Amino acid sequence: MARVYNFSAGPAVLPLEALQEAQADLVDYKGSGMSVMEMSHRGKEYDALHNEAIANLKDLMGLSDDYSILFIQGGASFQFAMIPMNFLGEGQTADYVNAGSWGAAAIKQARLIGNVNIAADCQKDIPTRMPTASELKWTPGAAYSHITTNETISGAQLKEIPETGSPLIADMSSDILSRPLDYGKFAMIYAGAQKNLGPSGVAVVAIRKDFAAKGSISIPTMMRYQTHIDENSLYNTPPCFSIYMICLTTRWLKRVGLQNMFKQNRDKAQLIYDAIDASKFFRGTAKKEDRSDMNVTFRLPTEELEALFIKQASEHGMKQLKGHRSVGGIRASIYNAFPVAGVNVLV
Amino acid sequence: MARVYNFSAGPAVLPLEALQEAQADLVDYKGSGMSVMEMSHRGKEYDALHNEAIANLKDLMGLSDDYSILFIQGGASFQFAMIPMNFLGEGQTADYVNAGSWGAAAIKQARLIGNVNIAADCQKDIPTRMPTASELKWTPGAAYSHITTNETISGAQLKEIPETGSPLIADMSSDILSRPLDYGKFAMIYAGAQKNLGPSGVAVVAIRKDFAAKGSISIPTMMRYQTHIDENSLYNTPPCFSIYMICLTTRWLKRVGLQNMFKQNRDKAQLIYDAIDASKFFRGTAKKEDRSDMNVTFRLPTEELEALFIKQASEHGMKQLKGHRSVGGIRASIYNAFPVAGVNVLV
Repeated sequence: MARVYNFSAGPAVLPLEALQEAQADLVDYKGSGMSVMEMSHRGKEYDALHNEAIANLKDLMGLSDDYSILFIQGGASFQFAMIPMNFLGEGQTADYVNAGSWGAAAIKQARLIGNVNIAADCQKDIPTRMPTASELKWTPGAAYSHITTNETISGAQLKEIPETGSPLIADMSSDILSRPLDYGKFAMIYAGAQKNLGPSGVAVVAIRKDFAAKGSISIPTMMRYQTHIDENSLYNTPPCFSIYMICLTTRWLKRVGLQNMFKQNRDKAQLIYDAIDASKFFRGTAKKEDRSDMNVTFRLPTEELEALFIKQASEHGMKQLKGHRSVGGIRASIYNAFPVAGVNVLV
Repeated sequence: MARVYNFSAGPAVLPLEALQEAQADLVDYKGSGMSVMEMSHRGKEYDALHNEAIANLKDLMGLSDDYSILFIQGGASFQFAMIPMNFLGEGQTADYVNAGSWGAAAIKQARLIGNVNIAADCQKDIPTRMPTASELKWTPGAAYSHITTNETISGAQLKEIPETGSPLIADMSSDILSRPLDYGKFAMIYAGAQKNLGPSGVAVVAIRKDFAAKGSISIPTMMRYQTHIDENSLYNTPPCFSIYMICLTTRWLKRVGLQNMFKQNRDKAQLIYDAIDASKFFRGTAKKEDRSDMNVTFRLPTEELEALFIKQASEHGMKQLKGHRSVGGIRASIYNAFPVAGVNVLV
């Protein structure tokens, strides 16, 4: 088996030991005589995996029992709709920060539901960046405020979490559990799993129970956070195999340790940024202080050279380095499970 | 490896050869150096699997290019909300048949959105049954009519698809592609994958494009069928691994042939029903002419004997025979991939 260095922005590289364990048990999970994919979601084997995944996530984020961990299908894109449907009532305002494509996508869906204030807008700035604390304009009494902690496409990451004065909701799809944070300062955190947590097909939501309780009761049952809290994410059949992979990935992350993971992530990113800065050929696209540890974005002098770079990198076993189709350039996504060895080869 | 006989109602048994192929390729898909779980959903390897799954489903259902096949997260439960949000406008009425728990669940969500007429109600009838053609009362000019072709919990199956006079929508979660049908008579068919098509985490939707075009444009982008048609189910990151398993399962089903599958399904069910009818000890719970080929439901003289039966069956390698917690009794779910040998052992 020859594994490539997989720089995909998501679905992304998973820990090899998680994949190998899943492979060994794929047809017969631990002598049960069936695959995890074939098990009732109400049986004891699946139940143990489901609850371990929840416990691991809660533990890694250091969250108290004031929070529930939920698994909801539809990825972060579905959360863009579910959040305002739950929490943005008539006559209320929600604050959104627009610092990139994903913030903008969340705003677009919130505007279909209610009134939105843009707390800061730097989406189109070049170099790409995050807003500074002083430019953020929060609405007194806002229903909630929404930030995107890492913009996967532009490669900018919010290093300091702002104080907003209203319940703070963060889309952490591309940097959840890549660093220690005071996760308990958020009313809600959500993340599509397919970057740092597991395969695609599920969003992980950490939500403060008292905040969830304020959600609308006149929306479809599946769209209410309260439903998923009450049913421990088993209101309907969950995406069992994806949650099993989250269980294996978070088990791995607990063994590594979040602080160690963070140090390794910083080191990996720094190696690439140092190479960029030492060169006149490569040019980073994000403002230095906002550079992402997860998605390293850069350009070459011409698009032709970028195409050649991607082609030659592929020939050397480095795959999926192409920047997002909306911005072009090169993007090296180096999530938790991306090995240091691959960064060394790229550098 | 000792595989058990897995009678789970869903997630349910998958074709062994599909699982074995997935296992072989789990860490390194066909020499790509990565798992299907780690691939960009916009890359060429995943793209081929995605489009093959669509082509297989369309081919097996015999649908023309007037239809789109969609993969939407959230299972059938999310479809219960998405259907009325798209198609049940103000001042309109939708007809629903209530013949069991799943029909009732669909109705509950539709009523949150708009006006519902119950075309027939036999949900609580004992023995469980499907409505006859003559008792169905359709609304002239209804926005759509909704049926559940197989009630997984009660074990009743609709043998003849009714003529409704309005666009017909069917929840086929537990009997899709278990039998040849005129799939082209429906405006929309949907099914949670985790019974006859693959693992949990995705619903398959077959929808007539001209019907989808009538959907509301003021709902969140993710909830519009038109979005998923326009983007070939790649508007957001799809549940790639679940769709890959659907690809493998439909490949297997094409090799078997739908007509052969149907014959085998009829034979499997008949073997169990014959054993029930020949006994004074066991009692089928559905009306004879409405008995499901997918979920065979029956009772023993007492709940204590049922518990003993389930325990002893388990000791003989027959798992997950317990009836749904809402009704009790025994349920043998024998979907497409359930082997004839397991039915013989049960009988």
